[in-house]
Order: sequence, then structure tokens, then C-alpha cells
Amino acid sequence: MPLTAVPEVLRADDLHVRARLAESARITDGVATTSEQFEKWFAERRAAQLHEVTRIPFAQLRNWSFAQDTGNLVHDSGRFFSVAGLKTEVDDGPVRQWCQPIIVQPEIGLLGIAVREIDGVLHLLMQAKAEPGNPNGVQLSPTVQATKSNYTGVHRGRQVAYVEHFARAEPGRVVADVLQSEHGAWFYRKRNRNMIIEVGPDVEAGEDFCWLTLGQVHEQLRIDHRVNMDARTVLSCLPFFSTEDRALHTSTEILSWITSNQAVHDVQTTVVGLRNLPGWRQSDWAISHERGIFFSVTAVDVVANSREVGGWTQPLIEPHGVGVIALLVKRLDGVLHALLRARIEPGYIDAIELAPTVQGTPENHAHLPGPLYQQLVDFGRRRQQGRVLFDAEMSEEGGRFYHSRSRYTVVEVGDDYPDEEPPGSRWITLPQITWLLQHRHYLNVQARSLIACLRGGADNAVA
Amino acid sequence: MPLTAVPEVLRADDLHVRARLAESARITDGVATTSEQFEKWFAERRAAQLHEVTRIPFAQLRNWSFAQDTGNLVHDSGRFFSVAGLKTEVDDGPVRQWCQPIIVQPEIGLLGIAVREIDGVLHLLMQAKAEPGNPNGVQLSPTVQATKSNYTGVHRGRQVAYVEHFARAEPGRVVADVLQSEHGAWFYRKRNRNMIIEVGPDVEAGEDFCWLTLGQVHEQLRIDHRVNMDARTVLSCLPFFSTEDRALHTSTEILSWITSNQAVHDVQTTVVGLRNLPGWRQSDWAISHERGIFFSVTAVDVVANSREVGGWTQPLIEPHGVGVIALLVKRLDGVLHALLRARIEPGYIDAIELAPTVQGTPENHAHLPGPLYQQLVDFGRRRQQGRVLFDAEMSEEGGRFYHSRSRYTVVEVGDDYPDEEPPGSRWITLPQITWLLQHRHYLNVQARSLIACLRGGADNAVA
Repeated sequence: MPLTAVPEVLRADDLHVRARLAESARITDGVATTSEQFEKWFAERRAAQLHEVTRIPFAQLRNWSFAQDTGNLVHDSGRFFSVAGLKTEVDDGPVRQWCQPIIVQPEIGLLGIAVREIDGVLHLLMQAKAEPGNPNGVQLSPTVQATKSNYTGVHRGRQVAYVEHFARAEPGRVVADVLQSEHGAWFYRKRNRNMIIEVGPDVEAGEDFCWLTLGQVHEQLRIDHRVNMDARTVLSCLPFFSTEDRALHTSTEILSWITSNQAVHDVQTTVVGLRNLPGWRQSDWAISHERGIFFSVTAVDVVANSREVGGWTQPLIEPHGVGVIALLVKRLDGVLHALLRARIEPGYIDAIELAPTVQGTPENHAHLPGPLYQQLVDFGRRRQQGRVLFDAEMSEEGGRFYHSRSRYTVVEVGDDYPDEEPPGSRWITLPQITWLLQHRHYLNVQARSLIACLRGGADNAVA
Repeated sequence: MPLTAVPEVLRADDLHVRARLAESARITDGVATTSEQFEKWFAERRAAQLHEVTRIPFAQLRNWSFAQDTGNLVHDSGRFFSVAGLKTEVDDGPVRQWCQPIIVQPEIGLLGIAVREIDGVLHLLMQAKAEPGNPNGVQLSPTVQATKSNYTGVHRGRQVAYVEHFARAEPGRVVADVLQSEHGAWFYRKRNRNMIIEVGPDVEAGEDFCWLTLGQVHEQLRIDHRVNMDARTVLSCLPFFSTEDRALHTSTEILSWITSNQAVHDVQTTVVGLRNLPGWRQSDWAISHERGIFFSVTAVDVVANSREVGGWTQPLIEPHGVGVIALLVKRLDGVLHALLRARIEPGYIDAIELAPTVQGTPENHAHLPGPLYQQLVDFGRRRQQGRVLFDAEMSEEGGRFYHSRSRYTVVEVGDDYPDEEPPGSRWITLPQITWLLQHRHYLNVQARSLIACLRGGADNAVA
């Protein structure tokens, strides 16, 4: 049996794909699709995919109800997802014990982007897709975005397009394939399979789909609420090319620091019933925190003309306030490093994941004297003084979250910013982050979004 | 801030340490300790650490009892570990649903080996340590083997020796540091931190400790029940050097295959009470399966003269039968590949981990017509025809398992063995395995043991 020549066996990547992706990132004026064609297509899809979303009281949910024993919000089929309660005890931070509603969805969803060479340039097959929770209807989404239920037919609707290419991908055509977590503050141990595969010339773009170069996708990323969370996380897992081999820490040191954080923090979580959750109030229309902060569990009625099923009702999580999700980057000895923070969230499998430098919603923390609030305050100042490499407002998964809004920002700080790492954080280079992203659960979903934005929004800074 | 030169930034290792480890592996006749000195020391420690272990009925356990509500076997302090019940539903194999007792121990233990240069050669600080479940009392163990309870003082005994070197390791002195799982059939989501650190000349070997070269440790591995499980798993995480860069599969393909297995298999586990577990019978002395197979939960009284505390009682798991844990390796185009199998065990965090080619206890599977039994039968034949590179009987963790015995075997098969991979398995090279072992939960504890044995027992085959 002849062996594949694998000069990069230890790096788990393909230099050839990396070079072709770098080439695609440089092209922003279109090969398969001009910018003008794209804008026309996107406006048409937006008009064609009308979602009429109405807030309803829980009693008007169809096929969803509160379970008699636990009070959990569940679907009659026992599938999709449920909203339960979670009790968390941690050994760090200003609040050591709390209860909250949490989305429980043990299935591993598939988020996939197909890439294909057109006229010698790699193109990504992007989808225009409406979700009921999106503040603006249609967003640019991955080729495939499917729960296991979706593609095993629980929906009783149409088959998810292109899913067969991912289910039957030839090993040699896989560019990336890795499990990554979702929001650990809102989901209990939810993971998605992030997959990028290369397809052949026989695969064409359907009505809701469009071939874009990586450079074109990067341009879209800079537009508020244009590229959805699912697309951002898949983009972050792309193998990126860099010749930079210097770093403040060796990779063994980075791994050891991560392991240490996972090993020493005690995070005890217990899934409990949603009924009578301490600190939370349930009305006919919402389950909300007694202070009115964090988020509410609500319900909506959706009428759609473009979905697998024409209309449905479902619960959604409605975050309050506008999140601040920011990465500080700095050149250390000329090499760009990002300041990532080990962050505890109750829904993580491994106690901590690496999060952006700043991640929080000011309203949620204003009453707490903790370091997180201090970071939010400090970030306002850094933003003024530094060079803003990326700045856009984006939303989270519109299938679960109602009008969630966060400001994603990357700021390059100057020499006045201390080299010393604040407690629980490390300066990590982009090649090291790319290497970590080949493996599951090292970077949280907010950090992954920012990495996709940093690569896309600041090519010059990263190159 | 000057950067460390990190030519191997993407490989997360240190070529210099690798070369020094390779040098240490070549030396088997002793530098700090001659073989004669070692044997004398080991015999003395064995005589000095007397454990008198007596089976007792559960009613004679001190500080352990069955909880009123669940029937779980728990310690009065709520710490150490407990024995609960686990209900598992899987979508693969001849048995799709079962209940069993399971050890629940959410804390992450520390398994650490200190290495130090003596006369220019790296030495490992190995410990002679008795455990109540060991079939032969003292085994060669890591420098430090500690539960979190151990080193935070729940034992109310002496401090665990050398633990401070691991707790306060300088980042640059860390050789490996990674979370790895334990037996997924017996533990629920148990992980240990596997750590190797380099210490300075000020660190000396105490009475129960001995400096050995890696070559000497490898010689000990070949002796039945000599090197304990904790040492084997830490040894497996050592960064090993290889210039071989050819492989049947690229590393992206390997990762994608692992992700695919983790994503598609449905493994639903529910921790339930130990009382009235279907299929299991509880007597005054044991909780056993109604067929008398798998394992029993039992209790022992231990009188020791060398432990942090002089005497105690505790539950132990007593596996039945002798396990067969075997790796088939084959040269494909001249390059050694090991056949690893994606294996479902209920205690894994991620549904599957990579297991040896064959892993099972014939008695447990004789009544089942599944593929596992076929593999056990087939292995007997392969063993006759192939070249046995490693073969020894070893035990699992003696702090939890009573007289567990498994035959660990590595067999190199010839050209008559098909290159084609059986369903759910892949040929993976040693450098690829070393690379996977830098990250958590890819290889199960049995596969890790075999990798340590393969490197140690078959240097010529691996080089």
C-alpha cells in the first residue's frame, strides 16, 4: 500500500490548501460572483425569505410545553432542544453560586462550508438564510447548518441541501473537521461539528447559495449583522498560512497553561428543573431574572415562506443589553500576539476555554465589583488609545437567540500597554491559535468569531 | 519583551528535550543507579511497604456507607470517590442498553514524573508505591500520584512528596502537561493531569524514590505487574523523537475520522442510584452482575505502615477474568503503523476514544456474538503468526481496582495481514500518535499503556 507523502504530518494541515486559501483571501473583487452580483442576489434572497416573527405567550406554543415534573420547556417529540435549569458552583469570581435557565441540546450539529475551485481560485459556498431570532432576517450562513434532527428528518420537511457532500466527504477532500463549543453561558455542553470540505466542479450554487472568494467573505464580515455566528465559527477553523515562527510562549507552555486552568478550577454544575429557579421569575410571556438582567426565555410564532416547514412556534433566549466582545492584540518584538483569557462558563465541558480579552455585557456586571466589570471599563479607554483593526455589531445563532447584539472589536494596543499578562491570560500568536483550532474546545465561540474577524478585517496586520 | 525563539512553534514540543529523552532511552545499564542497586532498593521498598489487605463485608467499612436515598456507596466527607449506577444507551454493538455500577470521581488527579539531568543524562524520578489493589504490593509508580483531596489535606496525613514541584512548575521546565481519561468502562468521566517536568540538581531521591534512565524504565515495563498504570500513562505522554514523516493518512484525515466518530455516535448516559440496578445483585460482601461476569464492587480493610495514614477501609472494583489488550502493528511501505480502533465506553466525555486493536475480557463476551468477541478470537491466531514485540501482564490502578489483570501485547503482523482497515479503525504512525497525545482524550488509557510499552519494548522496531 503506497503511502501518501505527508511532509507536514505533525502539523495536521495541508500547505497546498493553505496557500490556495491565502490566494482566495487576496481576491475581493470577485471571480465567480462580482460584488454587484452578490449585492443583487443578497437583496433578492432577503426579500424572498420573509419571516414574520411575533412574540407569543408560552401558552400559545404549539408542540412545546412545560413538563409536569421538572417545569422544563420541552418539545412533544423529546427532540430539538429543551430549556432546563442549571445550578453552578465555581471557585473563582465575585459570584460563586447561581441558578439559571439553560438550553440543553445534547446532539452534535453540523456546520459546514463547501469550497470549490473556480477559474483557479478557491470559492466558499455561502448561504443566505433567515432565522427567526436574527435582528435583520437573512444573514450570510454556512453551506450547511443542520441539527442531527434536521438531516434525519424529524422536521418532516425538505432535506437540507448539500448535507450529503459532508456526510460522505472523501477523507482527502476534508480541509478542517473539528468539534467546537457554543455559548457556555446559555448552552449546556453543546458542540457543533465545524467542517470545511472541497467539492468538485459538479457542485453548483442553488437559489439561496452563492460562490464567494475568502476575500469577499472577509468584506462581508465587516458589515453589521451580515455574517452569522455559524459561518464565523467555521471560518475560524480554516487552516491559515503563516511563516512566523516566533512567539512569546512555546506551544508546550500554552498547552500546559490551558491544562493547568482546566485541572485546578472547580466548576460543579447540576442540571435541575426549570420550575421555581432561585432568582428567576416566570410570567405568561417570559422567564426573567429578578433584576431584569442577563436574558429572558421567551416564545415566538414564526411564519416563513422559505423554510423546510412553513410556520412554527418555538422558545428563544433573549439576551439583554449589547455585549462587548473584544480582543486586544499587540506586537511583541514585531510579532502580533492576541491576549486570550481562560474563562469559566457553566456550559463548557472542560471548566474553562480561551475567551477574548474582554467579554461581557456592562449592564450585567454594573452591580458587581469583580474584575470582569473592570475589564469592560478599561477596554473603553484602550479602544480610544489603540488602533481599531475590526469593529462591527453582530448577532449570535438566530435559531436560539432573539435579537442578540454584541459589538465585536479588535484593537491593536501600543507600547504603552503592559507586556505583562493579567492573571489568567496569555499572549498567543495567530499561528498558535490556528494550531489550537485544529483541536476541540480550546477557544470559545466568541474568541473564534474574533479570530475570523481579525484575519478578515486586518489582513495587513496579520500577514 | 524579547521573544523565545520557537522554531517548532506549531509542533508544541521541544526538539532538544526529545533528543535528550532519546539519549536516556538508549542507556539501560544505569548512570545514577546501577541495575543491581535498583533491584536491591526495590526489594527493600517492597519489604518496607507492607499492606495487609483483607476483604470485608460492606457493613465493616469505616466512614463509607450506602446513601439512604440513592444506595450509592459514599464517603462520609462527600469526597474521594463514590460508586453510583450508570444507565447507558448506545447506537452500536450487540448490546444497546445496560446498567452498571460506576466510579464517580469528578476531581482531576495529578500524575507527575520529575526528570533531572544527572551526569549529562536525563533521569526519571520513579517511586516504589504499594496500593491495596495491586496483586503484588509495590509497583514502580510516578514521582507524584495525587488526588486533589490528597494534596489539599483531606487525608489529614502527610503532604504528598514532590507535589510542590508540579504545583509551581516554571513554564519553561514543563515537558508535557495534558488531561487524559481513565477507564471509561469503570469511571464516569474521570481524568488525570499527566505531567512531566524537569527539575534542578537540588531535587534528590527520597527513601521511596529512585532515579532511572528512560532505558531502565523501559526494561522494568517488560516485567509482569512491575510498572503501574499511572506511570504508564505519564510515560505515554513523553514527546518522542522521530524523523519519519510518511504516513498512510494525513493528520487532517486522522482528526476528521476522530471527529466523525465523536459526532455520529449517540451515547446517552444517565447517572442513577446504585440501589436495585437492573442485572446486578447486592450481597453483604459484593455487588455483582447476575451472570458473574464483568466486575464486582467489594470492600477491603487495609493496614499499611508506609502510607499517609496507617490504616483504612475502602471499596474496590474487582474485575473478573484476565483482560486482553493488544495492538497490532504493521510496516506499510516500510513505516510502522499501529491499528487503533474508535471505541465507545460509557465513561468517556466524547463518546469515543482511540483504543487498542483488541480490548476485552473473553469471559465477558463469550455469550455475545458481536465483533468484539470475534476480534479476541482472531487475535489468538495473529499472535501465533506474527512477531511479538511486547508481552507482559499488568494491573490497573491499585487504589481503585482489586487484583485486576490484563495481558498487554504488541504484535507485528506480516504482509499476510490485510492493509484494509476494519470498520471503525485506522492505521496510524507513531509520530502521529505522539502528536495526538499532546492533546486531551484522543487515546484511551489502555492504548496509552501499549504505546509506552511499544516504545519501551521494541526500540528497534520504532526507531
